[in-house]
Amino acid sequence: MKKRIRLTVAYDGTAYCGWQIQNNGKTIQGELNRCLEELLGHPVETMGASRTDAGVHALGNVAVFDTDSRIPAEKFSYALNQRLPDDIRIQDSQEVDPDFHPRYRESEKTYRYQILNRRFPLPTQRLYSYFYHYPLDAAKMQEAASILVGRHDFASFCGAGAQVKTTVRLVTGFSVERKGDMICLQVSGRGFLYNMVRIFAGTLIEVGNGVYPPEHVQEILDARDRGAAGPTAPACGLTLLGIRFLET
Amino acid sequence: MKKRIRLTVAYDGTAYCGWQIQNNGKTIQGELNRCLEELLGHPVETMGASRTDAGVHALGNVAVFDTDSRIPAEKFSYALNQRLPDDIRIQDSQEVDPDFHPRYRESEKTYRYQILNRRFPLPTQRLYSYFYHYPLDAAKMQEAASILVGRHDFASFCGAGAQVKTTVRLVTGFSVERKGDMICLQVSGRGFLYNMVRIFAGTLIEVGNGVYPPEHVQEILDARDRGAAGPTAPACGLTLLGIRFLET
Repeated sequence: MKKRIRLTVAYDGTAYCGWQIQNNGKTIQGELNRCLEELLGHPVETMGASRTDAGVHALGNVAVFDTDSRIPAEKFSYALNQRLPDDIRIQDSQEVDPDFHPRYRESEKTYRYQILNRRFPLPTQRLYSYFYHYPLDAAKMQEAASILVGRHDFASFCGAGAQVKTTVRLVTGFSVERKGDMICLQVSGRGFLYNMVRIFAGTLIEVGNGVYPPEHVQEILDARDRGAAGPTAPACGLTLLGIRFLET
Repeated sequence: MKKRIRLTVAYDGTAYCGWQIQNNGKTIQGELNRCLEELLGHPVETMGASRTDAGVHALGNVAVFDTDSRIPAEKFSYALNQRLPDDIRIQDSQEVDPDFHPRYRESEKTYRYQILNRRFPLPTQRLYSYFYHYPLDAAKMQEAASILVGRHDFASFCGAGAQVKTTVRLVTGFSVERKGDMICLQVSGRGFLYNMVRIFAGTLIEVGNGVYPPEHVQEILDARDRGAAGPTAPACGLTLLGIRFLET
């Protein structure tokens, strides 16, 4: 009997060309497919919820695959973790409806972007945050972030090369918090455009350092032009924290 | 005019064979000497406060070197950071008395040992913590840690191969705190024996998982025998947070 298994996947994206399998270059999906094939003895094509970019990390990306194996669903996490490289670890495995598709099912994703804001870089933080030397005002960044919450046309925050029908998205929450030297942006929404969170981060940095006043973010939104927003902040600062699937 | 410069050094120890220079294998001291020689054009021999082991990290190790260069002392941090690999970063540089020797000057060192205590490993934490699957009781670990505070003969917590006149040391503070999935041990003292903090960690884990009751740590101390204590916990969990030099 065919069944569909859902995996919650955590990874350190440093060494990978991103989630999506490609001909040249190591990918998270490629490693998962390879380990599943080793385990099951048949070709496996996982389907992921979020195709994170090269260098982006995850605590809770989601993927599904189909198998008629008699291995109990909850055992896949252990069996895969024994085969996967140590920068990928399954956090949970369970059986789901055969028609559950993590990319097409409505969901809310939560991302974190970390900015290390101090005089000198810290080597033990370099892989999971973006180092930024000049002082940043987290309160102003929060003011700007709040403008981005809601249903808006985020064309100004969409990376080049994206092919989408609409650039309207719903951002459900956006917090900016300083914890010591680390500024943590946490943003939730129903789907994100290409590079959207990294352009949010690059733009909020320009607010935090005083280049723009917080309210200028409204003008950036209204411009519907990628050129109006700040730069795309580096991938290493970004982590997909988790995905919550909504009832349909 | 010869002057002595003190550097505060942070590093990710993952890729290194430890602090101390050696013929084969990359070391923190080796990288520092090489970059200083490039910068100054003369041979340089740095002297470090703490010869951390392979894989151990630091936020604030300390090293000194002598030079008659006219580069202002506080500029060395910037000049070195441009040359050092990105897993080593100078946090501070300043001139000190020519007789200041970081290893022989009385000091208090503070170490942190991180234990990731949850069902599955997290790839983004794997380089800076020791993953431990079975539940740990942080309150019991704190009880055991408190027994270790004070001036004691720590022979039971001294790794093999150490050549020291005495195994008596003063531990000035030892806290155990759970922050979510992470158990953080933080221990301060006037000098530590070889592998002492890692044997503390290995022993406290045996208390946290219920193998020993907390008060058994007193018997381990009294035994003055390395065989009485728990295993040496892995290097990756250990970070030298900082060194405070005492007035002499």
